Amino acid sequence: MGNLKKEKPLEVDQSGKFNRQKNRFTTPFGNNPGELPIEAGRYRLLWSPVCPWAHRSVIVRRVLGLEEVISLGTASPMRPNIPRVDWEFSLDEGNKDPVLEVQYISEVYLNADPGYEGRPTVPAMVDIKEKKVVNNDYFRLTNYFETVWSPLHKENAPILYPESIREEIDALNDVIFHEVNNGVYKCGFARSQEAYEESYDTLFNQLDELEKRLATSRFLHGDYITDSDVRLYATLVRFDVAYYAAFKANRNRIVDFPNLWGYLRDLYQTPGFGDTTDFNAIKVHYHLSNHIASDDQKSLNILPKGPDMSIINTPHNREELSGKQEKFLIV
Amino acid sequence: MGNLKKEKPLEVDQSGKFNRQKNRFTTPFGNNPGELPIEAGRYRLLWSPVCPWAHRSVIVRRVLGLEEVISLGTASPMRPNIPRVDWEFSLDEGNKDPVLEVQYISEVYLNADPGYEGRPTVPAMVDIKEKKVVNNDYFRLTNYFETVWSPLHKENAPILYPESIREEIDALNDVIFHEVNNGVYKCGFARSQEAYEESYDTLFNQLDELEKRLATSRFLHGDYITDSDVRLYATLVRFDVAYYAAFKANRNRIVDFPNLWGYLRDLYQTPGFGDTTDFNAIKVHYHLSNHIASDDQKSLNILPKGPDMSIINTPHNREELSGKQEKFLIV
Repeated sequence: MGNLKKEKPLEVDQSGKFNRQKNRFTTPFGNNPGELPIEAGRYRLLWSPVCPWAHRSVIVRRVLGLEEVISLGTASPMRPNIPRVDWEFSLDEGNKDPVLEVQYISEVYLNADPGYEGRPTVPAMVDIKEKKVVNNDYFRLTNYFETVWSPLHKENAPILYPESIREEIDALNDVIFHEVNNGVYKCGFARSQEAYEESYDTLFNQLDELEKRLATSRFLHGDYITDSDVRLYATLVRFDVAYYAAFKANRNRIVDFPNLWGYLRDLYQTPGFGDTTDFNAIKVHYHLSNHIASDDQKSLNILPKGPDMSIINTPHNREELSGKQEKFLIV
Repeated sequence: MGNLKKEKPLEVDQSGKFNRQKNRFTTPFGNNPGELPIEAGRYRLLWSPVCPWAHRSVIVRRVLGLEEVISLGTASPMRPNIPRVDWEFSLDEGNKDPVLEVQYISEVYLNADPGYEGRPTVPAMVDIKEKKVVNNDYFRLTNYFETVWSPLHKENAPILYPESIREEIDALNDVIFHEVNNGVYKCGFARSQEAYEESYDTLFNQLDELEKRLATSRFLHGDYITDSDVRLYATLVRFDVAYYAAFKANRNRIVDFPNLWGYLRDLYQTPGFGDTTDFNAIKVHYHLSNHIASDDQKSLNILPKGPDMSIINTPHNREELSGKQEKFLIV
């Protein structure tokens, strides 16, 4: 059935560790020859609300006011296995994305590279006229939006990637990527007890570090939200609903960390964050989708009612740490 | 394979609701003709530390000092499916209970009734000489230990089932049985979304009620531990480790209820409770045992490291509610 869980999947090594596949389409956006031109209306961003890697691009797109400039196509949280592990536009009329007129995301990958054999992933930036993926670099995509796309930002758009602290942001993003964003997947997809426990320890040691950091700092780099916060948010907001149980990342939930939990609520209550977060889609994906749910979960076909995430809207008082109401740096 | 999960099991009705099988061996213990005689050394109690129904009898046996009088056989948390869903003495030398000399608990059920077709369950009281189950009435067993077995109690044994409040205890036990003890199983074994959600709501409504009750009362019936507390404990102590994720009983964990969590710690820190609780066995059972773990969980063969239950030993200050250090009524 092509189910990732059945055999040792391609992205797991001899020792049982999960090694995420590399991105295939990494041509940068920019104004130099050979780069992807910055152009309003030229690209469509494909995402699914379940996916943390795609969610970050959608948050940044909204925060920077790129919504009129880059359109958005939304795949279903229920991933099909047949004919391959894919993402499907089954929420759209006729099961097709209304702009690209494709049913599966793999189609725009195969348009771009007929020999493409990796997993089709989101986020994917697609050239609308050519119906081809031109960039699926989830690691860099928000940085492109924040830098070379700036001529198309809304007026008074926040600065998410200030030049003066880019090195610190990049350095922290790297740690967050390996130990947290991808760290939860390393727990969930490990195929040996040893690889699992190593990832679990690394993940929770890093969450302990971040908990300390956020005791005195409202956001990761001080008083204002930056690109690093977007990246951490995408994992934290899925943690208690999905990773805690489905990926055995269960030393603690995020609600058990006072600072991380206050920080998560602070971000959730910020336009661009909570309003792009779909808890139901996340739960459907992790519990019912063919791609990731176990056979038994699927055969039961029962969606957990909990956890109760309504508490994410409770007051957090994190503004006391910065002494400011505003969360964004606007120059 | 006889796996409960594969087809709609016998104990699930048309609407998808779980209906626990009735006990087969319910002859009471007592001193009247036709009752099972009270006799030191005559019976062996079979249990497995994973099972909440058996755990209660083991707690009461220890609290009342019946350990020299009724011996104990311990089945493995890993339940075999073959030749049938069973409990196995695979922790013992030669995979056999050293006293009864059987490998599977079903053997002493079949000795008692060669036509027995139900699930072999724990707790089971077995006549050692005959090697036959004589009583598997998990609902009444602690009450027998507390009443007709009293001539064999240790000196100054606590009163767990005081005559003056037996009606209240029985009434509350009934609610706890249907809505909590069996309530978690109704969530986990439901085969329709509707049956699951109904059980989930009933369970958490009752936990909300108990949370209120325990705000002003150290134990369920006042200042002293009674039979009702033993019954509630057996479910609460397994909740965050097992039922929360494995049975989708995930509105909240017990640590999220301040009073229930203090109450659980108070009981855990009482001789007979924490020292008969084996978190590792409970986790092994729910995540790795053939009987209950999903195919994918088994094929991964990875035991979750969390949750961190060391916090169950932290101070609870519940003695302030009773104004007493002692937790047992001793006459």
